[in-house]
Amino acid sequence: MLRNYTVNAKGHLEIGGIDSTELAKTYGTPLYVVDEDLVRKNCRIFKRAIDSNYDGNGMVFYASKAFCIKEMCRVIDSEGLGMDVVSGGELYTAIQAGFPMEKVIFHGNFKTDPELEMAVKANVGRYVLDNLYEAERLNKIAEKYNKKVKALLRVSPGTDAHTHDFILTGKIDSKFGTPIENGSALKVIGEIIKYKNINLAGLHCHIGSQIFELEPFNYTAKVMLNFLADANEEYNINMNELNLGGGFGIKYIDEHTPVPYEKYMESVAKTIDEVCKVRKIDRPYIMMEPGRSIVAAAGTTLYTVGAIKEIENVRNYVTIDGGMPDNPRYALYGAPYDIIVANKADKEPDYTATIAGRCCESGDLIQEHIKIAKPQPGDIIAVLDTGAYNYSMASNYNRLPKPAVVFIKEGQARLTVKRESYEDITRNDI
Amino acid sequence: MLRNYTVNAKGHLEIGGIDSTELAKTYGTPLYVVDEDLVRKNCRIFKRAIDSNYDGNGMVFYASKAFCIKEMCRVIDSEGLGMDVVSGGELYTAIQAGFPMEKVIFHGNFKTDPELEMAVKANVGRYVLDNLYEAERLNKIAEKYNKKVKALLRVSPGTDAHTHDFILTGKIDSKFGTPIENGSALKVIGEIIKYKNINLAGLHCHIGSQIFELEPFNYTAKVMLNFLADANEEYNINMNELNLGGGFGIKYIDEHTPVPYEKYMESVAKTIDEVCKVRKIDRPYIMMEPGRSIVAAAGTTLYTVGAIKEIENVRNYVTIDGGMPDNPRYALYGAPYDIIVANKADKEPDYTATIAGRCCESGDLIQEHIKIAKPQPGDIIAVLDTGAYNYSMASNYNRLPKPAVVFIKEGQARLTVKRESYEDITRNDI
Repeated sequence: MLRNYTVNAKGHLEIGGIDSTELAKTYGTPLYVVDEDLVRKNCRIFKRAIDSNYDGNGMVFYASKAFCIKEMCRVIDSEGLGMDVVSGGELYTAIQAGFPMEKVIFHGNFKTDPELEMAVKANVGRYVLDNLYEAERLNKIAEKYNKKVKALLRVSPGTDAHTHDFILTGKIDSKFGTPIENGSALKVIGEIIKYKNINLAGLHCHIGSQIFELEPFNYTAKVMLNFLADANEEYNINMNELNLGGGFGIKYIDEHTPVPYEKYMESVAKTIDEVCKVRKIDRPYIMMEPGRSIVAAAGTTLYTVGAIKEIENVRNYVTIDGGMPDNPRYALYGAPYDIIVANKADKEPDYTATIAGRCCESGDLIQEHIKIAKPQPGDIIAVLDTGAYNYSMASNYNRLPKPAVVFIKEGQARLTVKRESYEDITRNDI
Repeated sequence: MLRNYTVNAKGHLEIGGIDSTELAKTYGTPLYVVDEDLVRKNCRIFKRAIDSNYDGNGMVFYASKAFCIKEMCRVIDSEGLGMDVVSGGELYTAIQAGFPMEKVIFHGNFKTDPELEMAVKANVGRYVLDNLYEAERLNKIAEKYNKKVKALLRVSPGTDAHTHDFILTGKIDSKFGTPIENGSALKVIGEIIKYKNINLAGLHCHIGSQIFELEPFNYTAKVMLNFLADANEEYNINMNELNLGGGFGIKYIDEHTPVPYEKYMESVAKTIDEVCKVRKIDRPYIMMEPGRSIVAAAGTTLYTVGAIKEIENVRNYVTIDGGMPDNPRYALYGAPYDIIVANKADKEPDYTATIAGRCCESGDLIQEHIKIAKPQPGDIIAVLDTGAYNYSMASNYNRLPKPAVVFIKEGQARLTVKRESYEDITRNDI
């Protein structure tokens, strides 16, 4: 069974109160549609979680790698959230959108010198240092501009949150950060605090993605806060910021059972209070970095159905006019998605289909053997929950242009990213 | 052991006679470098294979989905090859490069109406029809422009070439074409020949990728030619073109043992002659579609090394300034690559490394546990054989700009694709 969605009197899927088949007609397919009202609702849940469980002593940073376009920056800003960027490109987008730089946190395991310089000049609020090599370069660049920059150190707390191998990052075997458990992190802190142009304000970690339990977060908060207290004692410093990253699961399919997002903060706040009491320390400033959980469920991708190939005793291929270039997550991770025929949203999903993309590659599939209403060429296929890591991971494989992005707010649709043109694709060819 | 490459007196990797570290300095990293001389050499091998084994009665089409930029179209044209395009974007690129349209063959399992219209107006030489739904639309569009277009029908011959699941396309379970074995293909031919604006000239198949044996090709040629003769008899028509697609394996690593490319045609020609003798028919016009085998080995990607993380008893992460956005093939298929430290090409590869990209994603790796010379930050890493399906599959994940592409010809380097700018990435954002 599919989750709740709105079906209008014509039996068509509605997104934010608008008939999805009308969107397909107006803007063409493939088309990314984002329910801005839902994005805003999710932002508020996370923000309120810190306000009500932690006296507002913290900040929610939207992890923009999930979906980074100018209009998204504006929406996030207007909801009062901060933003996490991981590259010069994401930072540039935030700058162009007029996002307040003091509320930007700069992540990534390899920030280049030009990127660090761009960030220092723009007065980015915080840096998450991945390693000493980066700290050294950041210090040099900050010195050049006569600035003292605020930084957190990314550490790996050794938490294994039992998610997909690809998105497991809190354990010791990680390309990110520095492990606590082998003593590396403590050593690195000792080095970073020697840098005159870096103010090491706290620690960061990220334990994975699509986590459906509270326990990994509690465990992590405990490990991290104790380590922060240890490091403060060891070096007689006063780090007081704790960034626990993201990883809050979302419901792609019925079997996924996410914890209500406010529960994470409620639960973590208790853990923090316990540790603070034992260690006799003040509550740290807290940071969360939801990405997928803010935008995934708000996104829907619309496609037009082409040929349908019913190969007896094998399977039924339903071809669509997009595929792995606009959504590589099935090819990459075997990621599950719920899919419906948008113009037959009231029909029984009794047809077993494999949704095949249009790329010249057999692996270009969106889902296999799923149940949808019996489709025919020209129908509109809606893939649900594609707001995160779809547009952001899109390629031009087969030289296919990237789809347009439409936002829906209070029943009104507006274009926020124009469809790529062939001119765009060949623009840099000499 | 790595395959042969040139190392200069400084111990640096040379590409087409140029020091790769100089290329990195001049053009920046990440950088795609293409040895044009090798591309041309490969083109000639395939062309000569038809000339010498088949009296030149055929054409080699470069499968541009492997790597499609304007300059590649020009090189392919100057070598006298045709070109296979699978989308409006690839066709547009060919048109912009001045590629002769009569030597273009238009592929794909979902060509949209605007794409078909673009192709018909441009007088594209051949269409590979994937299915009846497409044939119907093409006929309508050709009629509108008062043209008769030449087409082949893509069929699946039921050949299982035992390659990676993702790139197996000749078997009956395929989103491409129409199966021979269940009678579908014969029926579809019966329908297509009724269309007045389509000249059904022959058949097409493609049995997979990275095939290291002759036998699947021989078997396929036999099945295809017999089926062509059957269909000609059945409908009293005269199809005389046979397109056996591509799939010729290349040597990514030492364990790969490709057949010399001319052998395919030599072997297939014999099979065809045998069938022609038995069936008492004329030799068909033959077509081959090499993509990877023309360009993969000619490409090298250069990266700069960032932080190196040696996690004891776990592994050594060597961070580079690119990753899955410019080469998603390890994340997608676990594809193997040989990798060397370009400025230490004469040093013993005795250091076990995991090459980690810079994306905020744990799965962003290029290879794991490979042997390279001991690297340090600032070194140049060269990933070999990245000419195919790297630039063409590149994304802007994490809003990273796509790298530049440099061609090397007779010891001279020239820019053929400019590095993407942040302006390019945000150009369509509103």
